[in-house]
Amino acid sequence: MKVGDRHYRTLWVGRDGWSIEIIDQTRLPMEFQVLRLTTLADAARAIRTMQVRGAPLIGVAAAYGVCLALREAPTDSSLAAACDTLLQTRPTAVNIRAALDRMRFALSPVAPAERAELAYRLAAELAEEDVAICAAIGAHGEPLLRELWERKRQREPVQVLTHCNAGWLATIDWGTALAPVYRAHEAGLPLHVWVDETRPRNQGYLTAWELAQHGVPHTVIVDNAGGLLMRQSRVDVCLVGTDRTTRTGEVANKIGTYLKALAAKDTGVPFYPAVPSSSIDWSLRSGSEIPIEERDPSEVHSYAGMPAHNPGFDVTPARLVTGLITERGVCAASEEGLLGLFPERR
Amino acid sequence: MKVGDRHYRTLWVGRDGWSIEIIDQTRLPMEFQVLRLTTLADAARAIRTMQVRGAPLIGVAAAYGVCLALREAPTDSSLAAACDTLLQTRPTAVNIRAALDRMRFALSPVAPAERAELAYRLAAELAEEDVAICAAIGAHGEPLLRELWERKRQREPVQVLTHCNAGWLATIDWGTALAPVYRAHEAGLPLHVWVDETRPRNQGYLTAWELAQHGVPHTVIVDNAGGLLMRQSRVDVCLVGTDRTTRTGEVANKIGTYLKALAAKDTGVPFYPAVPSSSIDWSLRSGSEIPIEERDPSEVHSYAGMPAHNPGFDVTPARLVTGLITERGVCAASEEGLLGLFPERR
Repeated sequence: MKVGDRHYRTLWVGRDGWSIEIIDQTRLPMEFQVLRLTTLADAARAIRTMQVRGAPLIGVAAAYGVCLALREAPTDSSLAAACDTLLQTRPTAVNIRAALDRMRFALSPVAPAERAELAYRLAAELAEEDVAICAAIGAHGEPLLRELWERKRQREPVQVLTHCNAGWLATIDWGTALAPVYRAHEAGLPLHVWVDETRPRNQGYLTAWELAQHGVPHTVIVDNAGGLLMRQSRVDVCLVGTDRTTRTGEVANKIGTYLKALAAKDTGVPFYPAVPSSSIDWSLRSGSEIPIEERDPSEVHSYAGMPAHNPGFDVTPARLVTGLITERGVCAASEEGLLGLFPERR
Repeated sequence: MKVGDRHYRTLWVGRDGWSIEIIDQTRLPMEFQVLRLTTLADAARAIRTMQVRGAPLIGVAAAYGVCLALREAPTDSSLAAACDTLLQTRPTAVNIRAALDRMRFALSPVAPAERAELAYRLAAELAEEDVAICAAIGAHGEPLLRELWERKRQREPVQVLTHCNAGWLATIDWGTALAPVYRAHEAGLPLHVWVDETRPRNQGYLTAWELAQHGVPHTVIVDNAGGLLMRQSRVDVCLVGTDRTTRTGEVANKIGTYLKALAAKDTGVPFYPAVPSSSIDWSLRSGSEIPIEERDPSEVHSYAGMPAHNPGFDVTPARLVTGLITERGVCAASEEGLLGLFPERR
């Protein structure tokens, strides 16, 4: 997507053909800075400190972390240690595990001397897949926005509310929840996005920044405000991302998502998580099995000595979800719904 | 209530017998500073800039604003202008209007030369009434906490969640939502309070500060976290304040309260607003008639150029409310419930 006039992805292989370059998201929106990762430790730190963030993006970043580790030492133990290190960076998003499982499965049988090259090829595949998945989510989500536009008799912009950042910064390109927004915007459909600031890390500012780069009208609100806006009929649809969705359609996402889903249900506003299949954990039937990351309490407050608690995610039950937007289409938030689109997971 | 070893109210008449002293709440929790108000303009600014805040406290502060105005000029036009100025400081809380109506009704028929003295007497009465009302809310709310303690078989502390600050800083003394907490704490009942930070103004830090002064265990959380905690059965009761409650039991309170009420309903957690009768607007039947204050968007964000929207309050429908804790007892959130306790309003 665009930054100023130039097209960027969130992560790419450097000109040297092996180092990894990322947009440092801890510096946005204040400054746009590219960071170079050259070691496994660099990659793990980038994920842990949220220099890269967003479930799809950290999956790909973890895959490239394996590449950097194998470049240093292509042994079995190096591969295993790299996977262990990367798996422990962030516990909630399932994308890291999915990406690492795929890397390990493909790399283990291969002779050590050939591993690094294959790893880069696999990671590049994962990145391209992510772009294709996000583009497809955009294509499947856009008609939902168009329908709302028709229902409003094409008079007022479609009002979207989103939580956290599930835009292109959370993926390699396009985004998940925002992919339909970008596609509809490019097709000329009038939109306005209410952006939850998303305490404590304020990823809403990332969302506002990337929407501004693309000229999509938007307004930042505190996380407390969305309920009022829905009661005032000033929201037509909620679009959010997910860090892990169970096979039964329960959606773990950034802390506070559940509260917005409750308000949407209470006010009759449709609530759609955008769910790339890389974020589906087919092994889980209940959201209560999803590990909730506990982050440092210092993120919450700025006054010394105040005790704080800082869980990073919550789980929205399927009963509050209107539908899941996947790369294969929109389905009900249920096992039946998901298996209808992904029959190979039966 | 206590600050260190000393007893304080939030507002009092100075040693000179006429100036008004307040705790400057915009400086807390960083520093405890007393501010002296000597003019109507001082009082209006203190309310508008939230140096004093909380529906009950700003009602009393407005009454003292009238005193300061009449001391300067006790004319009819001075009285009218003072009431107009003070009424416009904050639109949502009904306490200012109720206090000013009472002052004007009593002062208008009195000879100008006697007005200032009477005004100070009336304002002092209002302050004493507020203390008595809050103490009574504490007495009526404490049994609800005790019942939860028994239901937990006296094994684990009662877990309270509160939003914004409805403690003694929001009143003259004791607080509304926190009055039952202080009373139960003094009686030895083990409690822990989850404190919503309450963006954008972070009044949760005021709550944490005053709970800390009194030794009540507490933990600050972001506004997004309460839903997860309720889903995890880590909240036994929600206690909140109100800025204006309709005669039908709809509760306007700090933005975000509605989202917590939804989560409480969804998880079976009792949800009690503490409602001093001074916050009841007997003229309104619907919460949609309550004016919602729009505050400066600059409170929301710290990055120049990002558009923001900053509504200060939302309305929780009566169907989400377990009961209203008033100074006359606990009642259903309905016209019938409120009129049962306040039959003179039939």
